[in-house]
Amino acid sequence: MNSKELKKLLEDVKNGSVEVEQAYKEIKALPYEDLGFAKVDHHRTIRNGYPEVIYCEGKTSSQVVEIVKRLMQKNNNILATRASQEVYDAICQLTSDAEYHRDARIVVVKRKEIIITEKQIAVITAGTSDIPVAEEAAVTAEVLGNRVTRIYDVGVAGIHRLLSKMDIISEANVIIVVAGMEGALASVVGGLVDKPVIAVPTSVGYGASFGGLAALLTMLNSCASGIGVVNIDNGFGAGYLASNINKL
Amino acid sequence: MNSKELKKLLEDVKNGSVEVEQAYKEIKALPYEDLGFAKVDHHRTIRNGYPEVIYCEGKTSSQVVEIVKRLMQKNNNILATRASQEVYDAICQLTSDAEYHRDARIVVVKRKEIIITEKQIAVITAGTSDIPVAEEAAVTAEVLGNRVTRIYDVGVAGIHRLLSKMDIISEANVIIVVAGMEGALASVVGGLVDKPVIAVPTSVGYGASFGGLAALLTMLNSCASGIGVVNIDNGFGAGYLASNINKL
Amino acid sequence: MNSKELKKLLEDVKNGSVEVEQAYKEIKALPYEDLGFAKVDHHRTIRNGYPEVIYCEGKTSSQVVEIVKRLMQKNNNILATRASQEVYDAICQLTSDAEYHRDARIVVVKRKEIIITEKQIAVITAGTSDIPVAEEAAVTAEVLGNRVTRIYDVGVAGIHRLLSKMDIISEANVIIVVAGMEGALASVVGGLVDKPVIAVPTSVGYGASFGGLAALLTMLNSCASGIGVVNIDNGFGAGYLASNINKL
Amino acid sequence: MNSKELKKLLEDVKNGSVEVEQAYKEIKALPYEDLGFAKVDHHRTIRNGYPEVIYCEGKTSSQVVEIVKRLMQKNNNILATRASQEVYDAICQLTSDAEYHRDARIVVVKRKEIIITEKQIAVITAGTSDIPVAEEAAVTAEVLGNRVTRIYDVGVAGIHRLLSKMDIISEANVIIVVAGMEGALASVVGGLVDKPVIAVPTSVGYGASFGGLAALLTMLNSCASGIGVVNIDNGFGAGYLASNINKL
Amino acid sequence: MNSKELKKLLEDVKNGSVEVEQAYKEIKALPYEDLGFAKVDHHRTIRNGYPEVIYCEGKTSSQVVEIVKRLMQKNNNILATRASQEVYDAICQLTSDAEYHRDARIVVVKRKEIIITEKQIAVITAGTSDIPVAEEAAVTAEVLGNRVTRIYDVGVAGIHRLLSKMDIISEANVIIVVAGMEGALASVVGGLVDKPVIAVPTSVGYGASFGGLAALLTMLNSCASGIGVVNIDNGFGAGYLASNINKL
Amino acid sequence: MNSKELKKLLEDVKNGSVEVEQAYKEIKALPYEDLGFAKVDHHRTIRNGYPEVIYCEGKTSSQVVEIVKRLMQKNNNILATRASQEVYDAICQLTSDAEYHRDARIVVVKRKEIIITEKQIAVITAGTSDIPVAEEAAVTAEVLGNRVTRIYDVGVAGIHRLLSKMDIISEANVIIVVAGMEGALASVVGGLVDKPVIAVPTSVGYGASFGGLAALLTMLNSCASGIGVVNIDNGFGAGYLASNINKL
Amino acid sequence: MNSKELKKLLEDVKNGSVEVEQAYKEIKALPYEDLGFAKVDHHRTIRNGYPEVIYCEGKTSSQVVEIVKRLMQKNNNILATRASQEVYDAICQLTSDAEYHRDARIVVVKRKEIIITEKQIAVITAGTSDIPVAEEAAVTAEVLGNRVTRIYDVGVAGIHRLLSKMDIISEANVIIVVAGMEGALASVVGGLVDKPVIAVPTSVGYGASFGGLAALLTMLNSCASGIGVVNIDNGFGAGYLASNINKL
Amino acid sequence: MNSKELKKLLEDVKNGSVEVEQAYKEIKALPYEDLGFAKVDHHRTIRNGYPEVIYCEGKTSSQVVEIVKRLMQKNNNILATRASQEVYDAICQLTSDAEYHRDARIVVVKRKEIIITEKQIAVITAGTSDIPVAEEAAVTAEVLGNRVTRIYDVGVAGIHRLLSKMDIISEANVIIVVAGMEGALASVVGGLVDKPVIAVPTSVGYGASFGGLAALLTMLNSCASGIGVVNIDNGFGAGYLASNINKL
Repeated sequence: MNSKELKKLLEDVKNGSVEVEQAYKEIKALPYEDLGFAKVDHHRTIRNGYPEVIYCEGKTSSQVVEIVKRLMQKNNNILATRASQEVYDAICQLTSDAEYHRDARIVVVKRKEIIITEKQIAVITAGTSDIPVAEEAAVTAEVLGNRVTRIYDVGVAGIHRLLSKMDIISEANVIIVVAGMEGALASVVGGLVDKPVIAVPTSVGYGASFGGLAALLTMLNSCASGIGVVNIDNGFGAGYLASNINKL
Repeated sequence: MNSKELKKLLEDVKNGSVEVEQAYKEIKALPYEDLGFAKVDHHRTIRNGYPEVIYCEGKTSSQVVEIVKRLMQKNNNILATRASQEVYDAICQLTSDAEYHRDARIVVVKRKEIIITEKQIAVITAGTSDIPVAEEAAVTAEVLGNRVTRIYDVGVAGIHRLLSKMDIISEANVIIVVAGMEGALASVVGGLVDKPVIAVPTSVGYGASFGGLAALLTMLNSCASGIGVVNIDNGFGAGYLASNINKL
Repeated sequence: MNSKELKKLLEDVKNGSVEVEQAYKEIKALPYEDLGFAKVDHHRTIRNGYPEVIYCEGKTSSQVVEIVKRLMQKNNNILATRASQEVYDAICQLTSDAEYHRDARIVVVKRKEIIITEKQIAVITAGTSDIPVAEEAAVTAEVLGNRVTRIYDVGVAGIHRLLSKMDIISEANVIIVVAGMEGALASVVGGLVDKPVIAVPTSVGYGASFGGLAALLTMLNSCASGIGVVNIDNGFGAGYLASNINKL
Repeated sequence: MNSKELKKLLEDVKNGSVEVEQAYKEIKALPYEDLGFAKVDHHRTIRNGYPEVIYCEGKTSSQVVEIVKRLMQKNNNILATRASQEVYDAICQLTSDAEYHRDARIVVVKRKEIIITEKQIAVITAGTSDIPVAEEAAVTAEVLGNRVTRIYDVGVAGIHRLLSKMDIISEANVIIVVAGMEGALASVVGGLVDKPVIAVPTSVGYGASFGGLAALLTMLNSCASGIGVVNIDNGFGAGYLASNINKL
Repeated sequence: MNSKELKKLLEDVKNGSVEVEQAYKEIKALPYEDLGFAKVDHHRTIRNGYPEVIYCEGKTSSQVVEIVKRLMQKNNNILATRASQEVYDAICQLTSDAEYHRDARIVVVKRKEIIITEKQIAVITAGTSDIPVAEEAAVTAEVLGNRVTRIYDVGVAGIHRLLSKMDIISEANVIIVVAGMEGALASVVGGLVDKPVIAVPTSVGYGASFGGLAALLTMLNSCASGIGVVNIDNGFGAGYLASNINKL
Repeated sequence: MNSKELKKLLEDVKNGSVEVEQAYKEIKALPYEDLGFAKVDHHRTIRNGYPEVIYCEGKTSSQVVEIVKRLMQKNNNILATRASQEVYDAICQLTSDAEYHRDARIVVVKRKEIIITEKQIAVITAGTSDIPVAEEAAVTAEVLGNRVTRIYDVGVAGIHRLLSKMDIISEANVIIVVAGMEGALASVVGGLVDKPVIAVPTSVGYGASFGGLAALLTMLNSCASGIGVVNIDNGFGAGYLASNINKL
Repeated sequence: MNSKELKKLLEDVKNGSVEVEQAYKEIKALPYEDLGFAKVDHHRTIRNGYPEVIYCEGKTSSQVVEIVKRLMQKNNNILATRASQEVYDAICQLTSDAEYHRDARIVVVKRKEIIITEKQIAVITAGTSDIPVAEEAAVTAEVLGNRVTRIYDVGVAGIHRLLSKMDIISEANVIIVVAGMEGALASVVGGLVDKPVIAVPTSVGYGASFGGLAALLTMLNSCASGIGVVNIDNGFGAGYLASNINKL
Repeated sequence: MNSKELKKLLEDVKNGSVEVEQAYKEIKALPYEDLGFAKVDHHRTIRNGYPEVIYCEGKTSSQVVEIVKRLMQKNNNILATRASQEVYDAICQLTSDAEYHRDARIVVVKRKEIIITEKQIAVITAGTSDIPVAEEAAVTAEVLGNRVTRIYDVGVAGIHRLLSKMDIISEANVIIVVAGMEGALASVVGGLVDKPVIAVPTSVGYGASFGGLAALLTMLNSCASGIGVVNIDNGFGAGYLASNINKL
């Protein structure tokens, strides 16, 4: 209920076409349903052509299918993250619009055309093992309507590989850096650009990487300024944040 | 050395006005000094009217003064973070342009006019104890040329306080959330807006807050998407990143 | 042995109907068996119609069956937590009174009617993945004789979902909040009610959730007062504590 | 604004005594200010004779005095926790109603008579060093209107000391257990009573107590059911929760 | 080479029956092989009828069999810890003297009679899930020649169960306490006896037990004196230490 | 009340010289006061010439003096650990029997002759910085009536220093190993002797020693068997446990 | 492009045989590809007969085969670490030059003769379970052209075993110490030699070894000087560093 | 006692000039004192012109002076690390040969000429706050006789600063990298050189740097090979290890 509708309701009370009791009930229910909050239900129904998002981890294939079925009624695009092949197969039985991004473990059910931004998001990885997380970020950003450039395997142990890509990276509006092990790539990139950098630590590594903790701490303590960090392996979150920035 | 200058040098070699040996030396030194990297020296000389930044923690007053003296020759604005009263007093003996933001623990030496953006950055805190970190973020963003709105003491234990400010918050382009203790404010704000959110955990708290670790983990694990996290108490980093985003 | 019985025994010694040696033996054994401690054996024989409780994790089906067989002789209700389908099947071969709460992973063997309180316990979850832990709490509370209201999937990333349920929540006498990831729901609920809140962190999440540690720390550091926390995933403990409170 | 007032407003719109525009404004502001949430502003204005609470840690004496001055206008009792002698002295210059509970580090400014419950809260400590935290809990509970029984220095290393107090403890409605070092007291008490137990780990100890972490983990992992845990050294939180339970 | 032999060697040099070069070589090799260290090779050849010990974890069955074969030549008893059924079966093909203690996961190959001490070691557990670790301790102690009393499932949540066994426990010379979850049993037992107590934390538990860390910290911080702690689940180490103490 | 006295009481009831009511009261009070528990109150009144123990940390001088005054009435020896010079001076004003062991930070008030065992306890340190903790252990053991041998500064970085002392060490009945930094000494000593070894990690070190955690983990994971570990810096606990073992 | 080539290019510009535009392009691309950095691409193309290295963990067999195929074109030796039997089998289908070091989990494809140093690297382990990590170090060092001596199972619990090997160890130029559990071997070896020691903690152990953390901390805190530590289980890194040192 | 002396002793026994008993005693004492171990007493008496080392932390000035006095009798150079101004002043009263390296917190008492190697050790820091630790490493290496090059403040946030120094760095034989915060410098340097790299994490930083833990983990997980890590802030250890490598 927007301002206009609320005033209309009050007018109706005034002129007697709506009973006080009826108006009371509508107003009582009001603040939580329709007060024009910026984002009504971020997790399931994102406005403005944003896709509906399903986080599949810990859900059975049939649970996911059930959710997809319900969401398809809204005719929005659907983005299912952390989706296994099995989940994809199950969705395929529901609709032929589903597409599987295997590396990203994302299923996209495309129901509306996606309009792509001019401005680019660059997604950079330190190693090849970081690619699945990077793809989760990249595909998320693409489905959210962003142009994405991928620059993979440019870790700091061979700094020239990164430097030779700096011209491409510099053209991006937002930069996502995905790195496991010691995660130093974020600092080096952060020192070379003055665009917002989103750092995604990955659980790639062993021993004292402690499941991504080492990379996470590295990124949080970066001596370069202008870096925002998301959870370990959280490619979706990075892609989502990058999209929010890129679309400003 | 930009492309034009490099071509000019080669022309000079061609027409003999520069010796091969001389050109060789200039080119050899070139990649590290002047290849047009996006940000030549992020920590000390930031381009485009950006201030010079000094991190004062662990430096003596006389060391800071020495650095200020050197930087003043470039005629840029200077931003000294984590600056004590003593540091401020020492700088005052050098120049009358210094201004002390006591809560933020920032000294600004203003040498050039700062042009302020139309678009706003909102800085929100959960409690009053989080204000010093918030001020570090806010003053940093202001000195970097951003319009800043402060909304303090709207922690989630009294959710109505936050909700009553949502209209102001929604107008911002970027939102910085500063919170200690359990740090839940970032999730709630992240769920209410679709603008980029930068979360700053603070060391406010005791016992199992473990110096800000609890708030840090909360923010990294946020169920709301679109949140980038910086180091504990890193107001400067948040302000800097927010500025980078706001100026896109 | 209560006071009356002890006095009776002494009278019997006095009047010679019981030998000193016999009385000595009974008294010697007395303090640990029957001294009227409030709760004689909490883990296995809870008084006043409380069910017998079996924690099945780490026990084989046949071990559980053996315990059930022995407990059934007391004719109390039995509550078997962390019970797999296999454990349930094994118990079914023993008695037709067994009922399986699959989500809660609880088997109830009902031998006595359960009298239900007027006053309610509300069980709230942040997400759908938290439901199994919530069900463990809810079913435990129900078997202990409490009326339970379930309000699931009202996490703080969509605060309006929670707010729209506040009237139902406010009617409860005790509130159990079950949340994984960053666990912020406990703080928000704690700030909205003045009833006792029991917070249950869950291991739902990944990366820096560290198996529920993030949610646990969030809940312990809550800026809202009046929150008691139980172990990660400990639905049973929350249901049990809530029941103890609700029955005061 | 409660239901009656809202209906009254609508009636006034209907009968023309209030303009639509005026009603619109009041309703717009309504959800956050007066929708009958159970607890409007938990941190500062607690209803029903509850005191106003000030957490003094990290505030200067003059800041505290300023807050006290403002709160005194509401004529409620005031509870200032983590208050140093210096804070107390400063408050004394403002009012002669202030009383200092030195062990508890609490200043109480009494403006209204406190009505005390019949039912008791027992506060138990393992050692003498745990007493300050216990006193914070006890005084908080008392100012909130509860009868409190103190049973100090009954740690499990001398189990008979605890057992000899079980009759007193059993009479309480809610039990607060305060213990540092290994914190085992909570489990033993939890196994002896069937009343709600609130466990407060303290930072008393050294070495591998890691500032109270050992006691905290002990209490969270208790083999006794029915125990809710609060933050390390959080006597106020325990007293507050106990009061919420005791007043049901 | 003992002192007598060394002097004999020198005499032989003196009287010429051994060449200087030959004596030099023997002496050069001497310090590491035969200088009368208290325990020559603790892990494999323990003196005085002590068994040879094999830690099977991380070894294949055939590797274990190979070691057993070699050790059998010394005609000592053999103790294989962390041994699976498969390891046992493999050893059985080598000798009919092997006996499998399934709970303890220990295979004993008995080649010499074990002389049992008069004095007893008591092994106590908090719960039934702690029994495998307790059995590892108990069987180890028995094979090392100690009389062992087992008192299982007397955790502190039902303190009367422990108290009713105190007379048996008090008769022991050394007491091993095995407990997971919060591990409080060690403190209570340590407060009731004045014999050496060896505490074994187990990995029994979930959530914030962090694989036995909670119990470990509890035991290290015990408010009772006279407790020595071994590694999590280290039943063998506890049995070995208890034996060393019991045999003094 | 021992068995004989209980039977006597029952005889008195039988023959009428004690009233039933009177007997009832005495028996009711019985389990906690006089059931012949091995150690009635370990912390304050240790039997058999054992000293009374006061842990001074966190107590004011006047609190300690108050306790000493009360304990002196029992005419036992008194052992005050973690005692500062100031505490010692305060005790001196009470009695001339007080003696200060400065390194050990222990004050002994000697009221009874201490009978010293024949058998020795060896106290070994890795470095000189570990000596205060070692002295706490040594003095505790001495006051408890044990002969103590000190072998200091024989850390494993110069293994020959340790080896040259092995003959002295081997003569001890119990060995206390005190080591900070990496704490490896415990493993080496444990491998050289077959006597009980008590390992005390100290907080000596910096950086990744994390306040003694490194040494603690080293000792818990020792590849040598027969080692019991106490809390970081817990010299008193080690001396107490060693005494319990040595006096068997 | 080396100095000579750069000068040649400039000469060509001077004499007109190369156009300015063409020279500009070559120079622009220059800094990242051929500026004579010490090590151009450490991970894949190591100069001077060094092998190409593939880290197989997290790669499928077919991915590894694809990389091997590509690398074989350079005719260098290839070292595939963390390689399973399956990976080896897959490589065998490509070339008959592949050799599998099963313990080390390394596949070597030998295309060029390896020249072996005179100076030796000693690889020492504490236990037999540490051998796989030690073999990874040893085989790496050998393929990099170093003479390697293996001294296994000389842990500190039987110090004489280590001491009897000291003459062999002393002859080495660099010493790699591989140890799990408490990792004390590094300190003892570091105290006995004055050669560089590289310490490799392993994840061998259980309970409070926390996946190798205990050994890692031990080695970092070693009281012996001259020890460099690598990641847990990082045999390859140790072998690589040792080779770099040995070849100086 | 070297081989020659041992043979001489045996000859003396043979020819009767030394008694058997006397020889027996000398040989008995022999293995620990003089068996030609590579390094007899590493901590105090290092051979070959190596200085004696005193670690001053935790020692009083007078204790340090006492040790210096004793060591001066050997006429070796002395290196006192972690030495305050006060310690230096105290040493100055003993000898005029003392020199204070204030940044490094090292006092050197020079009694013998130090011969300096041709080959260099490079000491690199990320920031200016890392310089004290770097100086500890550099001065240690110099006093041990190594030529040292210092390259300070070349952190990765301004990668061109590092790259412009690569020619100097490449000339070094061993490279010490000193970095706090996220410690990424070690990885970048390790990727650019093929010389041994010793990484020293420092405690410079705040928040999630956790006292140097972040930098430590970064360095241990480095994606560049050939890096050995020492304890946080352990400049001495790095200088010592570098010297051992440089002198091979």
